[in-house]
Amino acid sequence: MSEKELLSHRIVLLGAGRVAQHLGPALFRAGYQVVHVWSRTNATAAALAKQLPGATASIDLTQLPVADIYIVAVSDAAVPAVLTAAHFPAEALVVHTAGALPLSVFGKWPTIRGGVLYPVQTFSPGRAIEWQTVPLCVEAADTVSEATLLGLANTLSADVRLVNTTQRLRLHIAAVFACNFTNHLLGISHALLTEDGLPVELLAPLVRETIDKALAEPPFSVQTGPAARHDQPTLTHHEAALEAYPDWQMLYKLLSDSIQRQARGKAQNNEGAF
Amino acid sequence: MSEKELLSHRIVLLGAGRVAQHLGPALFRAGYQVVHVWSRTNATAAALAKQLPGATASIDLTQLPVADIYIVAVSDAAVPAVLTAAHFPAEALVVHTAGALPLSVFGKWPTIRGGVLYPVQTFSPGRAIEWQTVPLCVEAADTVSEATLLGLANTLSADVRLVNTTQRLRLHIAAVFACNFTNHLLGISHALLTEDGLPVELLAPLVRETIDKALAEPPFSVQTGPAARHDQPTLTHHEAALEAYPDWQMLYKLLSDSIQRQARGKAQNNEGAF
Repeated sequence: MSEKELLSHRIVLLGAGRVAQHLGPALFRAGYQVVHVWSRTNATAAALAKQLPGATASIDLTQLPVADIYIVAVSDAAVPAVLTAAHFPAEALVVHTAGALPLSVFGKWPTIRGGVLYPVQTFSPGRAIEWQTVPLCVEAADTVSEATLLGLANTLSADVRLVNTTQRLRLHIAAVFACNFTNHLLGISHALLTEDGLPVELLAPLVRETIDKALAEPPFSVQTGPAARHDQPTLTHHEAALEAYPDWQMLYKLLSDSIQRQARGKAQNNEGAF
Repeated sequence: MSEKELLSHRIVLLGAGRVAQHLGPALFRAGYQVVHVWSRTNATAAALAKQLPGATASIDLTQLPVADIYIVAVSDAAVPAVLTAAHFPAEALVVHTAGALPLSVFGKWPTIRGGVLYPVQTFSPGRAIEWQTVPLCVEAADTVSEATLLGLANTLSADVRLVNTTQRLRLHIAAVFACNFTNHLLGISHALLTEDGLPVELLAPLVRETIDKALAEPPFSVQTGPAARHDQPTLTHHEAALEAYPDWQMLYKLLSDSIQRQARGKAQNNEGAF
């Protein structure tokens, strides 16, 4: 398929949340015709359509315009309900963007062709994303759909991969640890500082170095801190100091335990190698 | 005190571990005379002394040379034992580098002047640290020692602050969350990918964006992911997929619970504002 044929694809975007807000403009900039935005509320559908010249907006899933690709970019839990309610043309290529939903979610609708376009990135309002660097994971039920999706993904990003449902689930879980949970820990550290009037900038160089190191070497191999060195007096001292925050105290204890178990497991493996 | 007087200070380094390996050369480059390195083993003391022209090495705490500042850069748990065993000249300024040890750890030795020089950074062998950006937290028992330590810290870093024992403990706990625990989570995500043959580069742009965002905004205010959006089907799906990793499954559950409690707490606070 030539690039010209590819870019002639008409796209309907279902959803106007974080992913859709970033994906819609990226598709438009790449030269696609985003002809329609559906969302649960008029205001959000219209707001996103306004950014996509030529796009109409609606809240009616039964009157979607004819298009070549329908991208369902709603929250994972809402995908089945959208697929159930929507009227798609026969043989339409319908794609979801969810990490944890299998390709087989489309199995109940044999008249459409199912696919997945999962961007491994976190999207927030007002933060620009450099799409060329976003890994895009593609899966499709048939080779024609797969070729169409690979072509589309390649116009958005330089990092496109075929990733099946099982791998994508694991990748999504890994992303939750690396992104969502990491952010929560940074939130706890931020709150501990601000509640005591300490400037949050104090931790920025440490966080940057932690991440640079963890992306350069296997993180388990560069683990530092009181748990990794089995410094029980410091662990006890820290836990006692967190008494006013039972939730964070429990996380402190369990994460320290997990680090210590990991270190012991590694030691055992090393011994086993002799 | 002039810079020339300051730089005439003779320094003895007690310890040859990660902090000492980074601090010793930084002091030498800043123009100080590091006259001696003590460590528990000859090999480590000699190896570090070799990098510090003019420095001798020993494993004997009772024969330390006369110096103006003694920096005890051993693991937190080992500091009291080093202070007990070492023979310091009367009125010597003795400084530890630990986040969780109070200034009062020096209280048992009334003939020395105690101080703290705590660098908020993680140090690893072979990784260069840009000292000018490392926050250095200073505390001392008297104003003369404080001035000496502030002067020394200011020659190493552009970010020097007076931080008392209580604040330093909290800062150290925050650093454990932001650095050690974050690294452990990145280790889990790394292991989940590699064990399934998935390339670890897949998560790099996500991790970078997560950190950029968390350093730009209060992290709790930009939390994303299945827990934050109370997406129970995905949470259940993820937890089930982690069955082969009971330790990580438990962390998944507890971190997700903590994120949801945090989100509810915020919602309650917001309601309270009306």
